[in-house]
Amino acid sequence: MLTTISDAINKIFENLPHLNDEVINIEHALGRVLSQDIISNINMPPFDKSAVDGYAVLIEDTPGNLHIKETVQAGSVPKQDLSKGEATLIMTGAPIPTGTEAVVMREYTKEEKEYVEILKKAKPKDNIAYMGEDIKKGDVVIEKGTIIKISDISLLATLGIRRVKVKKLPVVSIMVTGSELIEPGEENIKDGYIYNANGYSLRGACKELGIEPIYLGIIKDNIEAAVSGLTESENGGDITLISGGVSMGDYDYVEDAIKKWGGKIIFHRVAIKPGKPFLFARKNSHIVFGMPGNPVSVMVEFWKFIHPAILKMQGVKNVFPIKIPALFKGTYKKKSDRPHYIGVKLVKEGKTVYATHVKSNGSADVPAFNKSEGMIEVPQEVTQLNDGENVEVMLLSLPKRENER
Amino acid sequence: MLTTISDAINKIFENLPHLNDEVINIEHALGRVLSQDIISNINMPPFDKSAVDGYAVLIEDTPGNLHIKETVQAGSVPKQDLSKGEATLIMTGAPIPTGTEAVVMREYTKEEKEYVEILKKAKPKDNIAYMGEDIKKGDVVIEKGTIIKISDISLLATLGIRRVKVKKLPVVSIMVTGSELIEPGEENIKDGYIYNANGYSLRGACKELGIEPIYLGIIKDNIEAAVSGLTESENGGDITLISGGVSMGDYDYVEDAIKKWGGKIIFHRVAIKPGKPFLFARKNSHIVFGMPGNPVSVMVEFWKFIHPAILKMQGVKNVFPIKIPALFKGTYKKKSDRPHYIGVKLVKEGKTVYATHVKSNGSADVPAFNKSEGMIEVPQEVTQLNDGENVEVMLLSLPKRENER
Repeated sequence: MLTTISDAINKIFENLPHLNDEVINIEHALGRVLSQDIISNINMPPFDKSAVDGYAVLIEDTPGNLHIKETVQAGSVPKQDLSKGEATLIMTGAPIPTGTEAVVMREYTKEEKEYVEILKKAKPKDNIAYMGEDIKKGDVVIEKGTIIKISDISLLATLGIRRVKVKKLPVVSIMVTGSELIEPGEENIKDGYIYNANGYSLRGACKELGIEPIYLGIIKDNIEAAVSGLTESENGGDITLISGGVSMGDYDYVEDAIKKWGGKIIFHRVAIKPGKPFLFARKNSHIVFGMPGNPVSVMVEFWKFIHPAILKMQGVKNVFPIKIPALFKGTYKKKSDRPHYIGVKLVKEGKTVYATHVKSNGSADVPAFNKSEGMIEVPQEVTQLNDGENVEVMLLSLPKRENER
Repeated sequence: MLTTISDAINKIFENLPHLNDEVINIEHALGRVLSQDIISNINMPPFDKSAVDGYAVLIEDTPGNLHIKETVQAGSVPKQDLSKGEATLIMTGAPIPTGTEAVVMREYTKEEKEYVEILKKAKPKDNIAYMGEDIKKGDVVIEKGTIIKISDISLLATLGIRRVKVKKLPVVSIMVTGSELIEPGEENIKDGYIYNANGYSLRGACKELGIEPIYLGIIKDNIEAAVSGLTESENGGDITLISGGVSMGDYDYVEDAIKKWGGKIIFHRVAIKPGKPFLFARKNSHIVFGMPGNPVSVMVEFWKFIHPAILKMQGVKNVFPIKIPALFKGTYKKKSDRPHYIGVKLVKEGKTVYATHVKSNGSADVPAFNKSEGMIEVPQEVTQLNDGENVEVMLLSLPKRENER
C-alpha cells in the first residue's frame, strides 16, 4: 500500500523536531523565520513631518508672497510656530512647525532673499505625513512565522529594532549510499561506476534554506555503515537525509539499518512519480528522510516534502511553492497510475503563460529536469494533458527571470 | 528632463564594471553565474544500464520460466553475455549484459531458487537506459551566463565536474547620508531623528545576491565626508550604493561630492514613482548608485535597476523578475505623470490570480510596501486601473509561498 502525497505530508508535519529560538542581528536575518510577533514601540512617522522639500504654510496664505521664518533641516526641529503671512522652509523628513496646514513643494515656489512666493493654492494636509499614520505604537507589524524578507529588514530598522528572535536552523546531515558511486572530480570511469550527484544537490538545497549541512559523504553499502552514519548524524542533529538504499533491490537495506539504529519507520513508499521509494522515519526528536538514488527523485522529494518541512518546523504558515496558472502546450499521456510531477518550460506570449512539457527519460534524466522551470502535478485520476488545458505550474527554486523589463 | 526607466537601464548596462572569473567547488556554487559553457566529457548514461531492479531478458523468452544466470549489483559489471532461456538479475543503475533486449521489473516476476518466472510479455528496450541517451559526450549541457541552481549542481556532479569557473561577485560598499539618522538598536528618540533603514535593507538586498557588502555606515551630511566615503569605496570596490542626499533640498549634495571625487554623472532623476531622484555615476570602472532617503524608493530602485545590473555584470541574460498575469482588484487612480510602481497582494480564487492594491501613504510607508507580494508597473500614459483589468505582477524577492499543497 502506497502512502498518498497528502498523507505523507501530514505524517511528516506531525513528526517534526522542535527547534529552539536564537537572537540575531537584522543584517543577518534575511530568509530566517521570526519566532516572535514584532510589536512597534514607536509611532510611524514618529512626529508630524514633511514628505517633501518645501514650505510649511497656512492655506489662506496661498498663493502669495510670504516671509521665510526659518529653515528646518532634516535632523533639526523648528524653533518657532508658524503664523499668518509666514512660511518655514523645511526639508524632507523634518518635523513641521506647530500651526502648519500644508507643505508646498519647493518646485512650486520662487525664492527671493527672505521672501518666498508660493505659486499655487495649497490643499489642507498636502505633503504632511502625520504621526502614527503608517504604524501606531503597540501595533503588531510583523507576525511570528514570517520568513524575513528585505522589506521586513527595512521595517525592523525603521522601528529601531536591531535584534530579533528567530528559530534556530535545523542541523542536517547528508549521507549517500551506493557502491557504484564515486565523488565528482575523482578520476573515472570504469564501467558500472557513476558520479555522486545527490550529495551535492542536497547540499545546495540545504544552502538555499540558509543551512550549512554536515556532509558525511558516500557510505558503504551495508547495514553497519548505515547505522554508524545514523548514529553520527543523531548526535546533536535534527535531520538525516539519505539517498539510495530504499528501493526493492537486494542491497536496499536502509530500512533495516534505521530499525537496527532504533528508529521507527513512519512510511515507506509514496504514490508519487518520480520518487516512489520515499521513506520517512523518526527516533526521538530526530527525523530521517530516505530517498532513492535517482537524482531527479531526490530533487523532487526535497522540493515537495523536505523544503516545506524545514520551513514548517521553523513556524512558517505558507510553506508550499506558489502556483502560476498557465496553458499546457503539447499533449502528455501518463503511463503510471501514480500522481506524476512533470517538468515544464514557461513561455510567455503577450499576457498568456504557456507551459511546455520537457520530455524526460525518467528519474535519472537530470539534463531534462534541469531544463524545467516549473512542475505540474498530474493527479492520480488524470491520464492525459491536452493542448490548451488549464494547468498550475509550481515554480522551482531560484525562479525563472525574464528578459522583458 | 527626467530620464526614462528604459534609458536609465540602458545607460546602467552600458557602464557596468568588468568582473574577473574565479574557480569554485560546485557545493559553493548555488546562485553564482557560470562564466564558461559546460561541455560534457562523458555520455549519460555512461553505459547501457537498467533503470529498475529487475531481470535482463530476451523478448522471445517472455513470458516464461528462465534460468538465473547471475546477479549484477550496482557498481558491478555482468560477467557473462545473455543467451536464450536465461535471465540476469540486475540492480538499478547497473550495466546490462550484452544481448539484453529488455529489463522486466522484479515486481512482475516470481523467483524460485535458480529460476525466475517472467509473468508478462516484455517490450523491446523496456527499462533500459541506453548510453548517451540523455547527454552525448561533447554536448554543451549548461550555458555560460546561467545562474547555478540546484539541478545544475546535480547535473555538474553527475558529469563528474567538481570545480567550475564563475564570475567573481562585485565588491559593493554601502553608505547612508542624513544628519537625522541613528542606527537601529540605539537609544532614541528625540524629535527629528529617525532610524536608518536603508543601510540594513541594502545589506539584505546584497546578501540575497550572495554578496557580503562593506557597510560604511552613516556618513556626515557634507561634501568632504561623502568624497572620503567614495574614495574608500573606490579602493578595490566595484559599486557604491548611497542613500539620501540626491533630491532637491539644500543638503542634497551627493551629486557635487561625486563630481569633486572625479566621477561623471550619467543620469540624475528618473521618470519613476517612487524614486525620482535616482542618480547613476561612474569613475573609471567604479559605478555609483545614488538613491533618495525614502526606504520604499530604495527598495524599488534596488529591485528594478541594481539587482538586474548586478546579474547583468555577471553575464546573466534574463535579469528581470518574472511577471505573473493577474486580474486587478479594486480601482487605482494615478496622480503623478510618471510611471508608478504600486504594491499588490496576490489572492488566488480557483485558477485565477487577483492582484489587490495595497494602499500606501507614499515612499516612506514601509509597512504598506512590506505587505506587498508583487508590484504592478502603471505606465506613464495610464491614469487609472479598473476592477477586473488584466495586469502583470512582478514578483518581489523571496516570492510568496502558499498554503495549498
